[in-house]
Amino acid sequence: MPEVLAASTPADWRAPDPDNTLYVELPGGRVVIELAPRFAPLHVANIKRLTRARYFDALSVIRVQDNYVVQWGDPGNRHPIPAGIGKVAPEFDLETAAGMPFTRLPDGDVYAPEVGFSDGLPIARSAALHRTWLAHCYGMVGVGRDLDVESGSGAEMYVVIGHAPRHLDRNVTLVGRVLKGMEVLSGLPRGGAEMGFYTKTEAPTPIKSIRVAADVPPAERSTLEVLRTDSVTFNALIESRRNRPEDFFKTAAGRIDLCNVPIAVREQPPAAHSP
Amino acid sequence: MPEVLAASTPADWRAPDPDNTLYVELPGGRVVIELAPRFAPLHVANIKRLTRARYFDALSVIRVQDNYVVQWGDPGNRHPIPAGIGKVAPEFDLETAAGMPFTRLPDGDVYAPEVGFSDGLPIARSAALHRTWLAHCYGMVGVGRDLDVESGSGAEMYVVIGHAPRHLDRNVTLVGRVLKGMEVLSGLPRGGAEMGFYTKTEAPTPIKSIRVAADVPPAERSTLEVLRTDSVTFNALIESRRNRPEDFFKTAAGRIDLCNVPIAVREQPPAAHSP
Repeated sequence: MPEVLAASTPADWRAPDPDNTLYVELPGGRVVIELAPRFAPLHVANIKRLTRARYFDALSVIRVQDNYVVQWGDPGNRHPIPAGIGKVAPEFDLETAAGMPFTRLPDGDVYAPEVGFSDGLPIARSAALHRTWLAHCYGMVGVGRDLDVESGSGAEMYVVIGHAPRHLDRNVTLVGRVLKGMEVLSGLPRGGAEMGFYTKTEAPTPIKSIRVAADVPPAERSTLEVLRTDSVTFNALIESRRNRPEDFFKTAAGRIDLCNVPIAVREQPPAAHSP
Repeated sequence: MPEVLAASTPADWRAPDPDNTLYVELPGGRVVIELAPRFAPLHVANIKRLTRARYFDALSVIRVQDNYVVQWGDPGNRHPIPAGIGKVAPEFDLETAAGMPFTRLPDGDVYAPEVGFSDGLPIARSAALHRTWLAHCYGMVGVGRDLDVESGSGAEMYVVIGHAPRHLDRNVTLVGRVLKGMEVLSGLPRGGAEMGFYTKTEAPTPIKSIRVAADVPPAERSTLEVLRTDSVTFNALIESRRNRPEDFFKTAAGRIDLCNVPIAVREQPPAAHSP
């Protein structure tokens, strides 16, 4: 993988849109989330409105379930959602569009007819259904909901911290992916109550703030770049993971599972100087 | 899942063999590992010899790589392996035996022709190769090795703490599965160096001790039972996860991935009293 990335060109990389990037500031550091407005426009708009209303600041991580999710929200239900921001329709999947980029994986999938990548996100799709959806891989961000499919507002988000819970696909709305800071979430103490919720005697981890990157002074922004999933380099990366060239591997898998493909993120290299 | 388990009978459960169970005592608590002598007899014998020689006591967790593995060993290579305990031949897979229990999953697999469960472990197999092997699911325990396939002695073990790294299947020897205490491992601080190794300024987590359960006074043993993977109840559990009956799920997956099937573990119920 380092060799494949070293051979990349600047055009293989993109900077995430600051207006669709969230910074979740926790005591352990910053978690950077890239939102997915193409897949969940209503939820992304809601989450940005909640963020800009400072709704999340001083709320907490309320649930850490081992091999499953970290979830944040309002532990005591004492913070009403600001007026004018309501629940929105589910965005579990969308109609497959002809122009949507799709880097297809060749090795199949247990859960869906086809899987691959679009816009830097793991996706699944069905030609029979004409539907495309985001897949629950490690680091994907979703919105909690109650039994009613329309109960999700974005006020509670969760991040996958374990083996891909793909049974959640098309059952909840995914809204983005963590680009950096997974270890800030995955190392949190697991909750002692049912489903990993914290008990009354366990101190929930406070959220210092959540901000839209565009609202943060440029000097305080993270300077990340994401490998374009429609680039030749990304395809080379997939191949190097299907058949690992390292001496360590004695039996090449020859195959790869959707959620085992790393979508590379790097610090922006310093601007080139004029000669 | 609670309903399925509530309908189980005592015969659906088994107590792990204390002579093939390890207790890894860390500052955060006990990790219980069930060893797999059927799949890795040489490595299991080595690990028990190392354990009984107190080789692991006062060694450390040396590596925590996010979404991958926790590994323990000798951070400074200052503890030579006791005389007479050497490296053993790789046990990456074994010939498929006619009498080996096999609860086959019906939904296929990206990496192997067939997958399912045997002796409480996730396995894969190939009829063409006549081979069966353990699969790298969350909580599986393997032995680190160097580039040489025969370099593994069992002196360094790792536990999977992320999305199943199935590309490691048939490349390293798996020796067992964590029955209890995954959260003690998965919540450890990630290492800051390459591959999650700890840097010199990061304090490695000490191993207080590792013991074979049979060597621990009965009153100090964990009293766990594992659901038999050849039981009707386990098959019912698989079905209840392929098509979740809970109201929350609007779209049934209708399928399940090997590493998403929970192999249930419970505390031994108190012995029934005579009337």
